[in-house]
Amino acid sequence: MTVQYFDWAATSPISERALSAYTESARTYRGNPSSLHEEGRAAARFLTMQRQASARLLGVQPQQICYTSGATEANAIIMQSLLWRRQPGKVILSSLEHDSILQYRRLLETYGFEVVIVGAPKGYVDPKEIAANLDERTQMICLLLVSNVLGTVQDIASVSSLLARHRQETGRRVHLHCDAVQAIGKITFDLDKLGVDSASFSAHKFQGPRGTGMLYLGTSTVEALSRGGAQEQGIRPGTEHVAAIAAMNVALEDALAQEQEHLLRARRIRRAFERRLEDHAGLMLLSPSVDSGLAATPYICSVAAQGVPSEVLTRILYDMGYCVSSGSACSNNAPGKKHGLLVSAGFSPSLASSAIRVSFGPDTAEDEIIGLADAIGTEAGKLKKITRKR
Amino acid sequence: MTVQYFDWAATSPISERALSAYTESARTYRGNPSSLHEEGRAAARFLTMQRQASARLLGVQPQQICYTSGATEANAIIMQSLLWRRQPGKVILSSLEHDSILQYRRLLETYGFEVVIVGAPKGYVDPKEIAANLDERTQMICLLLVSNVLGTVQDIASVSSLLARHRQETGRRVHLHCDAVQAIGKITFDLDKLGVDSASFSAHKFQGPRGTGMLYLGTSTVEALSRGGAQEQGIRPGTEHVAAIAAMNVALEDALAQEQEHLLRARRIRRAFERRLEDHAGLMLLSPSVDSGLAATPYICSVAAQGVPSEVLTRILYDMGYCVSSGSACSNNAPGKKHGLLVSAGFSPSLASSAIRVSFGPDTAEDEIIGLADAIGTEAGKLKKITRKR
Repeated sequence: MTVQYFDWAATSPISERALSAYTESARTYRGNPSSLHEEGRAAARFLTMQRQASARLLGVQPQQICYTSGATEANAIIMQSLLWRRQPGKVILSSLEHDSILQYRRLLETYGFEVVIVGAPKGYVDPKEIAANLDERTQMICLLLVSNVLGTVQDIASVSSLLARHRQETGRRVHLHCDAVQAIGKITFDLDKLGVDSASFSAHKFQGPRGTGMLYLGTSTVEALSRGGAQEQGIRPGTEHVAAIAAMNVALEDALAQEQEHLLRARRIRRAFERRLEDHAGLMLLSPSVDSGLAATPYICSVAAQGVPSEVLTRILYDMGYCVSSGSACSNNAPGKKHGLLVSAGFSPSLASSAIRVSFGPDTAEDEIIGLADAIGTEAGKLKKITRKR
Repeated sequence: MTVQYFDWAATSPISERALSAYTESARTYRGNPSSLHEEGRAAARFLTMQRQASARLLGVQPQQICYTSGATEANAIIMQSLLWRRQPGKVILSSLEHDSILQYRRLLETYGFEVVIVGAPKGYVDPKEIAANLDERTQMICLLLVSNVLGTVQDIASVSSLLARHRQETGRRVHLHCDAVQAIGKITFDLDKLGVDSASFSAHKFQGPRGTGMLYLGTSTVEALSRGGAQEQGIRPGTEHVAAIAAMNVALEDALAQEQEHLLRARRIRRAFERRLEDHAGLMLLSPSVDSGLAATPYICSVAAQGVPSEVLTRILYDMGYCVSSGSACSNNAPGKKHGLLVSAGFSPSLASSAIRVSFGPDTAEDEIIGLADAIGTEAGKLKKITRKR
């Protein structure tokens, strides 16, 4: 069985260049960057260089980069910073957020916070809905940049402008956090122009190593999630995983350097995929079409085979070697999550329950994705026939 | 300048075998273990195998192993679990604990906990002092296994027996957490016999990768530090760093397989080091001698050059290429930490301020460590002469 991988939004294979950077750095920088001797100082200098590289690649300042064990931890540092506050207030989350943010809802409510979840019709949060919920008690807004299920790109800049006006008018500062995990390489963006207070990144989503990520922190300061040494300005204690950071930077550099070229190619492949889907009756694109003019990454696409439960169809596709997703990977163990997200995006429960996520990468071939469209269409057709016969 | 590394307690070089395991696993297991397709399931099966291997090596059950981004996070999960409790109580910490535990003191007190720090005369916490502080409000005791500064081994089993009796008599369960970061390969121990409720480990202390560790959780359950997916039984969400876990297991296996042989060798080398120190006037061993019969690892040794501030002496040693420590690496950026620890261990402030930590590994050569003893003795002698002349 040939395995064909269409689950890049769950994780991407580490590139050979990133892997080489890992092994080379692990062999070369053997000291603890906090140690003051030669081995430690060499590691610390290398870490400083890496931070400068990350900052340059993201167009921000080195001191604004805090390395973490991944986006879950980066998001946790931000969400937890709310809990450290002695004054609970209001927090606005979009329904598109990853579980590493949404799962704080209950905890925040336990500690007296009001949590408002704003919907995202067809995958887009309306900044006006955020404006309508903004009041003097609002402390934080979390809005991801690219939906991991629909691929839609959120209008973060409008929300940050809104918050700038709110601040001018009321003197109140609201923290805008942006989960940018699905953004690197998948869309063109300028972190500085988005005007967010913080943003989270995960290396393994752009062919870097697992267990490695970044938290961008603009001007705001947050309290640490855990306590310990003074690493990462005290925000993220623990001996720095220098080799993984170096590997992440190589992957980041490659993703950004080839971004435009890969995006052009991805749009072509996505278009071919969408056209082939149209050839099969009963398949419906839930994500915006690549030619719709709507802001979305071509790399992530949700499609529904109407009337066919996604658990059944994906199982058949898995057996054929197709790696697709019936939800975000982390919530596959907790069924119904993606379903709920799609319902909150305005899709009918039956459409939501038949949704499959297809996400691809820079080396996905056009004939592979056309083969996948055919497999989805053909197998969904067979399943519907069986259902009708019963 | 030849760099000679005597700071293994801060971090150890990753072994080539561990590094190979990293690259091989990263190339082979490309899926997200939470994904249900073939790539995901292969990664999940591999992760299950790894968990079984970790458990077998530590002599515990697979479901008792929670992989983390390191010991700082493992300790944070435990300390934070106290904060999630709605009823603040009493927490007993030893003065030997790592900053990733001690730094919770202020936070716990802010949330209404009583924090008692028990001293460790000459590096040993007296279980009787813990008994004296134990009462109906006590919720947790943190006692590390091996001191990262003095190398002394704590009598954890006596404390766990004490807590078993306390439970029998009062019906109250007190959580015993053990930071075992400096234990792997450095002493012989049986996690099960120690009777702890939880223990933390860090891969990079035993020639595994950075950014990787384990939390052993006996029967007790704790609440997660951060929220997100259902990974690691929900205790530690985030995509698992499978390659780093595999690399850690290789390092763990090697450390344990060669433990006895390496310990014999380490005791010989330590003895040679101690004897050479005796040849230099004014050098004083703060750690127990390897021939004292006291419970301690031979790999970690604090020594003081009386009357010579350690910052001055270590700087000279650094310039000569010797990598030693004037404290635990993570607290080098915050001066005075180790100083305080040694004072609380009953050493005079002047002795504490002149302490240098020497820690070595399985491939440290005897002539290297004798050379270090001579360098410490000779340079300290020169510095004292200069001081006297002034």
